[in-house]
Amino acid sequence: MATKEGHLGASLGVVELTIALHYVFNTPSDQLIWDVGHQAYGHKILTGRRDAFHTNRQLGGLSGFPKRSESIYDAFGVGHASTSISAALGMAIASQLKGDVHKQHIAVIGDASIAGGMAFEGLNHAGVTNANLLVILNDNAIGIDPSVGALKQYLTNVKKGTQKQDNIFEALNFEYSGPIDGHDIHALISELERLKTVKGPKFLHVITTKGKGLKQAEEDQVRYHAPGKFDAQTGDVYTKPSMEQAPKYQDVFGHTIVELAKQNKNIVGITPAMPTGSSLKYMMEQMPDRAFDVGIAEQHAVTLAAGMATQGLIPFCNIYSTFLQRAYDQVIHDVALQKLPVIFCLDRAGLVGEDGATHHGVFDLSYLRCIPNLIVFAPRNEMELRNIMYTAQLGLDRPIAIRYPRGRGVTIDWKQPFETITIGTGIELKKGQTLAVLTVGTMAEQAEQAIANCEHPDAVGHVAMRFVKPLDEPLLHRVFKTYKTIITLEDNSVKGGFGSAVLEFAATHNYKNTIKTVGIPDVFMEQGSVAQLQESIGLDADSLRLVLNSFLKDIS
Amino acid sequence: MATKEGHLGASLGVVELTIALHYVFNTPSDQLIWDVGHQAYGHKILTGRRDAFHTNRQLGGLSGFPKRSESIYDAFGVGHASTSISAALGMAIASQLKGDVHKQHIAVIGDASIAGGMAFEGLNHAGVTNANLLVILNDNAIGIDPSVGALKQYLTNVKKGTQKQDNIFEALNFEYSGPIDGHDIHALISELERLKTVKGPKFLHVITTKGKGLKQAEEDQVRYHAPGKFDAQTGDVYTKPSMEQAPKYQDVFGHTIVELAKQNKNIVGITPAMPTGSSLKYMMEQMPDRAFDVGIAEQHAVTLAAGMATQGLIPFCNIYSTFLQRAYDQVIHDVALQKLPVIFCLDRAGLVGEDGATHHGVFDLSYLRCIPNLIVFAPRNEMELRNIMYTAQLGLDRPIAIRYPRGRGVTIDWKQPFETITIGTGIELKKGQTLAVLTVGTMAEQAEQAIANCEHPDAVGHVAMRFVKPLDEPLLHRVFKTYKTIITLEDNSVKGGFGSAVLEFAATHNYKNTIKTVGIPDVFMEQGSVAQLQESIGLDADSLRLVLNSFLKDIS
Repeated sequence: MATKEGHLGASLGVVELTIALHYVFNTPSDQLIWDVGHQAYGHKILTGRRDAFHTNRQLGGLSGFPKRSESIYDAFGVGHASTSISAALGMAIASQLKGDVHKQHIAVIGDASIAGGMAFEGLNHAGVTNANLLVILNDNAIGIDPSVGALKQYLTNVKKGTQKQDNIFEALNFEYSGPIDGHDIHALISELERLKTVKGPKFLHVITTKGKGLKQAEEDQVRYHAPGKFDAQTGDVYTKPSMEQAPKYQDVFGHTIVELAKQNKNIVGITPAMPTGSSLKYMMEQMPDRAFDVGIAEQHAVTLAAGMATQGLIPFCNIYSTFLQRAYDQVIHDVALQKLPVIFCLDRAGLVGEDGATHHGVFDLSYLRCIPNLIVFAPRNEMELRNIMYTAQLGLDRPIAIRYPRGRGVTIDWKQPFETITIGTGIELKKGQTLAVLTVGTMAEQAEQAIANCEHPDAVGHVAMRFVKPLDEPLLHRVFKTYKTIITLEDNSVKGGFGSAVLEFAATHNYKNTIKTVGIPDVFMEQGSVAQLQESIGLDADSLRLVLNSFLKDIS
Repeated sequence: MATKEGHLGASLGVVELTIALHYVFNTPSDQLIWDVGHQAYGHKILTGRRDAFHTNRQLGGLSGFPKRSESIYDAFGVGHASTSISAALGMAIASQLKGDVHKQHIAVIGDASIAGGMAFEGLNHAGVTNANLLVILNDNAIGIDPSVGALKQYLTNVKKGTQKQDNIFEALNFEYSGPIDGHDIHALISELERLKTVKGPKFLHVITTKGKGLKQAEEDQVRYHAPGKFDAQTGDVYTKPSMEQAPKYQDVFGHTIVELAKQNKNIVGITPAMPTGSSLKYMMEQMPDRAFDVGIAEQHAVTLAAGMATQGLIPFCNIYSTFLQRAYDQVIHDVALQKLPVIFCLDRAGLVGEDGATHHGVFDLSYLRCIPNLIVFAPRNEMELRNIMYTAQLGLDRPIAIRYPRGRGVTIDWKQPFETITIGTGIELKKGQTLAVLTVGTMAEQAEQAIANCEHPDAVGHVAMRFVKPLDEPLLHRVFKTYKTIITLEDNSVKGGFGSAVLEFAATHNYKNTIKTVGIPDVFMEQGSVAQLQESIGLDADSLRLVLNSFLKDIS
């Protein structure tokens, strides 16, 4: 694991548990589901994937998460949190219906994930069945960042013995067992053997240490959650040379919200369990009263923000694009319907790379665009992200979703004075003659390169539309009147995304220009580096150059 | 209430609580949020809306739910369940930040709604704050249908005194109080006065009887949840004359699944708390082992279905279109990504009428269409609903979403022999010459009427596309080659819906036909009868006739 990047800490914490589970249970006939799946590296190595493990998270290699198509030992595909209890219960009920009374169904879930509302829904249903379900709580008091919430405090009390045994899980009709030491393999095997004979829903509370066995990982669990490459002998993380780099988008967000919040006392920040990943941690450190990590609770995060907005606060609600799918109804029903000016900052939009199919943020433009009252914006670069954050906190009369990618931007000198962005305006970056490329977000970069290198750069115009909603209609009218052919470019699905918005505009106004929409095709994209994935679907600058050339071939 | 239809039972159960709350607390400065809002009729009557109450749920009248734009006493707009704790906590934190230590924030939530995962997320966060929040559990052991789940059993034990006081809500750091009799107004006032002086998160458990004071409503709580019109003297519900009628779509689903399940032992049915509304109750009565009411837990319902599907069961997961928004991530991440053949039956798609803005199912085609691997189908009539259910349970290699409207169909003799529908095929219902109308779902009916009454019926073709995904591309090629002008017609948003799918097809194949997309405009539609609402936005047959005429005016 030292020479490849990945999720280290969680897997180290469950080595003994993984061995015990495979020893006691008859997998794959018995069904074992790892919630989220960060902790399943040991499981993969034990189930025939040791020799392939060096391909973990790489293009064409093993998935970083359990995946049904990869192995019969992966009973259920995971990636997002809190799904395991529901899935395992579905399997357990299926076994009941088939009369298979001996089959075991095991969900292993962390203390951060079990606080997600969906996990509670699963427990609540399971407790009134007599399905053969074992829920194992892998309690290491941390998710990616330290766990939060009342349930976490409660679990801590259970561990310390200050909470009586008559507990929440028993209240929900589970046979409760534990807490036991998750690094004592004999105790684990003995207790799992016993629970195997107990019918109905069972709950085993296991205490583990994230990063167990690697000193640095035990001591700095946040950093070693997914540390990147490190020295296999010493455990030290390799640090990159300190060349000046453009910032990560998450840090542009993280530093800018602090900067704005110092001026505007109404600003608050919310993250569902991603203070480090979103860089809201900077605000949490400097303004702990005004920055909130609510745990893995995207639904709550959104409606909490809505409640705050009713009182005149200005909530920045930072959620990864893929996880906003968890709070879709709340965006519609609690925020947009009431026109509450919540500012959604959607990190990890577009292709995210090695986390793969479960984590790409390639649907947000489609699922957000149909929501009335919502502004949808994708910044072209770091300054636009800063400036739209600045603009939004000045006071909008409606909510806005700002979506930006994982990873680094392109501008070293990004911290420039704030400027207001007029809502619903695009920018004509380059004039042309016959062909216009319309971009949203950071795809502008690829478009610029493609245009510069195509056969007739002078013929190609480039407009950064920025706003997917509302569209800049005056600008679009000029574009449709000027250019014969329009190419739209986005890192969102071509189904219902930005390109479709342009098609709708054209149909409404009866324009007959040729329009080609370029974006993510209608398949689940697998893992790989972002560059590899873009190349595989023609979203890289060179593929785009060829597309431009194909439309320019009549010019000579 | 007797002469207007609406949600009766819940409001009757909280008359005393409503009076006590307004007596003890200083509304609207103190903020009172009713979860779902079915129970807020008394609140509306007490807060200046008595004289307007006869307009409840009618076009231009009072909303059936609390609504911020309607009254300053409605602190938060509601309609979907389990949002109140998050919203009230957001307000309470805002008050803290403003230094307003005396302001009270009260969420009143039923025992069915508190089992929704989002409510747990709110409790879990609230328990680690010292925000001034009072959660009142209105425990009447019933939602629309009787409550289910382990938490409900637990609450029953609390009421009977068989559960010790050291309870779930205390475990989550709430100061717990109760259970108390919700019909004893003196006890309520006294306890609310006491709780007003307690700082931090508080929980009051109140026992009520749904339908209190109306004998029939107490005795038949499901029927009197929203009984329709009834005799104000006797309480008897007016029954309609027993003329033979076309069935409700929900009953076509409800009877057909029983019919199919008798033949196919792998079929199971799932509803999140809507056995009556979805008519899954018929299967629950006849095959209780194979039909599951999982409570207000849409997320769990979907992933439970996914788990079942991995084991070869064939789950029909019935969720109202508007509530599937709650399980959007699960549809993507747990079902479609794994290509599990779950059969989603989305009732109440399109405009739903009197429930209004919170409940219209007008986004599903947009938010489902971008999901890879998912089939999306909208039946034209009762037989198509039956036949697609029949087809789906024969065994698909991927999931399908079948969306159909609230209310009655048009066919009295609907129970005809099953026929297989070929996935991805539309039907040309009528040939024409210059203009084609493409419809999905029951909008075919309006199209037929409009065509029959337009100026040149012979010129107008009609194609029922049925499948929004995959589109019938061979058929579309014929349409685009035959007709100069294409009109798409749907009861979904024009942003990203069926019409956009047709625009994408045309752009991909470089067709230059004139295309007009007709559907729900990009605003939140208010309440009213479906006919009134359709007329207001030009979706009725007569408005469509005028649209056709405008395109036909060159023919003479």
